[in-house]
Amino acid sequence: MGEFDLIARYFTRPARRSPLGVGDDCALLAPRPGMQLAVSTDLLVEGRHFLANVDPRTLGHKCLAVNLSDLAACGAQPLAFTLSLALPRIDEPWLAAFAQGLFALADRFDCELVGGDTTGGPLAINITIFGEVPPGQALLRSGARPGDDLWVSGTLGDARLALEASRGHVALPQEVLAAARARMDSPEPRVALGMALRGIATAAIDVSDGLLGDLAHVLERSGVGATVQADCAADLLAAGSAGFAPAPELLHELVFAGGDDYELAFTAPPSRRQEVGAAGASTATRVTRIGSIVADPGLRLLDAQGKALARRFQGFDHFRP
Amino acid sequence: MGEFDLIARYFTRPARRSPLGVGDDCALLAPRPGMQLAVSTDLLVEGRHFLANVDPRTLGHKCLAVNLSDLAACGAQPLAFTLSLALPRIDEPWLAAFAQGLFALADRFDCELVGGDTTGGPLAINITIFGEVPPGQALLRSGARPGDDLWVSGTLGDARLALEASRGHVALPQEVLAAARARMDSPEPRVALGMALRGIATAAIDVSDGLLGDLAHVLERSGVGATVQADCAADLLAAGSAGFAPAPELLHELVFAGGDDYELAFTAPPSRRQEVGAAGASTATRVTRIGSIVADPGLRLLDAQGKALARRFQGFDHFRP
Repeated sequence: MGEFDLIARYFTRPARRSPLGVGDDCALLAPRPGMQLAVSTDLLVEGRHFLANVDPRTLGHKCLAVNLSDLAACGAQPLAFTLSLALPRIDEPWLAAFAQGLFALADRFDCELVGGDTTGGPLAINITIFGEVPPGQALLRSGARPGDDLWVSGTLGDARLALEASRGHVALPQEVLAAARARMDSPEPRVALGMALRGIATAAIDVSDGLLGDLAHVLERSGVGATVQADCAADLLAAGSAGFAPAPELLHELVFAGGDDYELAFTAPPSRRQEVGAAGASTATRVTRIGSIVADPGLRLLDAQGKALARRFQGFDHFRP
Repeated sequence: MGEFDLIARYFTRPARRSPLGVGDDCALLAPRPGMQLAVSTDLLVEGRHFLANVDPRTLGHKCLAVNLSDLAACGAQPLAFTLSLALPRIDEPWLAAFAQGLFALADRFDCELVGGDTTGGPLAINITIFGEVPPGQALLRSGARPGDDLWVSGTLGDARLALEASRGHVALPQEVLAAARARMDSPEPRVALGMALRGIATAAIDVSDGLLGDLAHVLERSGVGATVQADCAADLLAAGSAGFAPAPELLHELVFAGGDDYELAFTAPPSRRQEVGAAGASTATRVTRIGSIVADPGLRLLDAQGKALARRFQGFDHFRP
């Protein structure tokens, strides 16, 4: 099987919304008049973002999910994506399972594969995703204002907990491990919540490298600081309600610096609390208020008495040893 | 230096046309009302598309040029691109030179870097590029009709000649080698010609894997066949006019199956010959009529007497051993 058969067999489906799908020099997209196009791209590399023995169905899901999560953080509606694949060899069962995981998620979000590229090489996957958002309504990192509430969606830290368990650093009961692994392998992008927060949230980001590290980008671009209530951590870790009770140090590491969460962290004025709650309810997404934006730069983690806690952990950086 | 410093130092410039540039979860593009968006993506991997010791400035040029060439083949006007980089290490002089080559070409085509991703890993570069084209005016692979002329832009085979010389298969005079290497390293995407051919060409493709292999895609999608005059080969190889006169077998291999040419192959009715010539002249791009589209499927290479030549060569396939 050659490059073009591979594309035809696994990655070509009839064009839906786009005027022209896979198989020409370019794909063609017809954005709705007046809409802005939100674009994001993510490169996943074996050994960095996933292990060689990863389940290909899971990998197909995850590499699209991380891109959908970027659209969610902008409040954009998914439209289409391109897929570049570097493959060490043509392994048909692997490709079939990868395509199955990819398209199952793509179909749920009505997001169409419109083009791509394949080559030999060390396994790497690049997806570029396109979404639509009305002009001026994209959620940006730069809009947080002093006094705003700080919110997160869903739960945090479970993906990292699964990683720590797989490294043998933590021992977990079977069902807690299974739930944590599902969080690591199959993140659920918060697309509906992001769209529901248009006009309500003042800033948003998706939590991929760890909450505090990602929040720092929001604070920097908004020119503000934040306080975060450390005692929300136990409640944010899903494994916590399943009976897993780590020591505070590990708990904080997991929840505040875990990474791979693909939840949204966002800000909104206190006057919009009810609307934030309604956005969560209407999209069946839990939302938790975890702190506040302040004028003083920097990010302070506060204990129940309002005392600042020392922070030793930091967000993920692909080039930090 | 970490991931975010790297992006800030080498790949962040003020947003120009786009409402929002590098540094948020998504970039935002505002397509002109009514225009279609042409999208293409290419993944270049060390050891496959370039060697480890490639000049990074050249690599920066080339990885954008191959994407611009896809826009050219659709007749689209370049707008913006995203860049994903997997880097084995942070090498600042390398990054500075790569960015210089990349942005020099991007600026010439007014094509803005709007977002991207960086990670550690074996060196790989993925660019996704966006261009604009009026609805219905994109040049597709599917529009060739029996009776159409078959044209190519520029010269063919010199990039492959440089490759063969670097492998020690061919000995070349110094200046012929230098010119051929320049063709291999710094292809010139035919963007202006592609745009000038809107409404004139019936089909187009960019020649990246070898003329006959790429033409086969046009023929397949158009449901037609073609004849190509083999005696045009000597004239199409730039090194030919510099005094390099290979045996016919090598000449045909270079010109018809060379690869890495990044010229346009396109079709147009004979009634439009003057307009094709004018499109070439107005964009300072040589255009050569090399054959005809016929109803019978298949691609026949004809000698000066109209007799079919045997073809042993084939287009490049990344998964063919």
